[in-house]
Amino acid sequence: MSLCLCLPLLSQAQNVEKSANDIEYPKNLTNWRVIGTSNRTDNNTQRVILGNALAIKAARSQNANINWPKGAILAKLVWKNDTLKTWQAATVPGEFVHAEIMLRDSQKYASTSGWGYARWTGLDLKPHSQDSKAAEACNSCHQAAKITDYVFTIPAKLP
Amino acid sequence: MSLCLCLPLLSQAQNVEKSANDIEYPKNLTNWRVIGTSNRTDNNTQRVILGNALAIKAARSQNANINWPKGAILAKLVWKNDTLKTWQAATVPGEFVHAEIMLRDSQKYASTSGWGYARWTGLDLKPHSQDSKAAEACNSCHQAAKITDYVFTIPAKLP
Repeated sequence: MSLCLCLPLLSQAQNVEKSANDIEYPKNLTNWRVIGTSNRTDNNTQRVILGNALAIKAARSQNANINWPKGAILAKLVWKNDTLKTWQAATVPGEFVHAEIMLRDSQKYASTSGWGYARWTGLDLKPHSQDSKAAEACNSCHQAAKITDYVFTIPAKLP
Repeated sequence: MSLCLCLPLLSQAQNVEKSANDIEYPKNLTNWRVIGTSNRTDNNTQRVILGNALAIKAARSQNANINWPKGAILAKLVWKNDTLKTWQAATVPGEFVHAEIMLRDSQKYASTSGWGYARWTGLDLKPHSQDSKAAEACNSCHQAAKITDYVFTIPAKLP
């Protein structure tokens, strides 16, 4: 069964510049479906992890050792933690920090473990870097997740 | 501009029973777009807040004092916190706890501040209660968010 929905609300940021590796910002990113959430206690941020259609299909149909197909994109929207005024024990999104993606192409991005990386900072989505070497820093950090194909995110269990 | 996407992946839980107040589980809920995230330090859970089309339109086009229209649904998917093995400072979704929704209908749900409430527990989405009085407990707790129309969630800033 398939379902078509009209999605009229695209990114409010227009004319977003390409980031490192000549990667374009996916303009409908905020309409993508959810793969998971995470909170980093080392920098007091929280994030939602979204995926494009290829990534969602992989994340929701495979249980372990996900085979991310060429063209799959995982995106993180990251916010500084804030405290919810009406529920003090709730930590909620405050200032928007950045959007970042990892894009699967084992050949094109062979030098960075098969993933292209890009990040745009702030609500106006300023490219974090135009230097193609910036992705090497991403790749270096993602070596810690080598066991899960360099992807930190484990898809959240969904009903 | 509008964009149509095919969304073939619906809930894996079939034949979900109605919850309190005769509310049906929205079967495509996991395909809804994101409104925000939150973490509760009082019960060590994290969640993503999704919205149906009416809720997303309201959340993304209004800055404050959101006028949630009739039929708007906010949904929370809630997980127990777990630690990410590949990044110990990351707290990520573990066991799935429940899906819960609040559904706007000021007249139908006048006795619970204009919102119908329902919750389904576990990956098999067992109705939390068939007792219509269960929503009174939800409503009682949501009084703390009266200033934001009984909705705890403040839509996260999106680029």
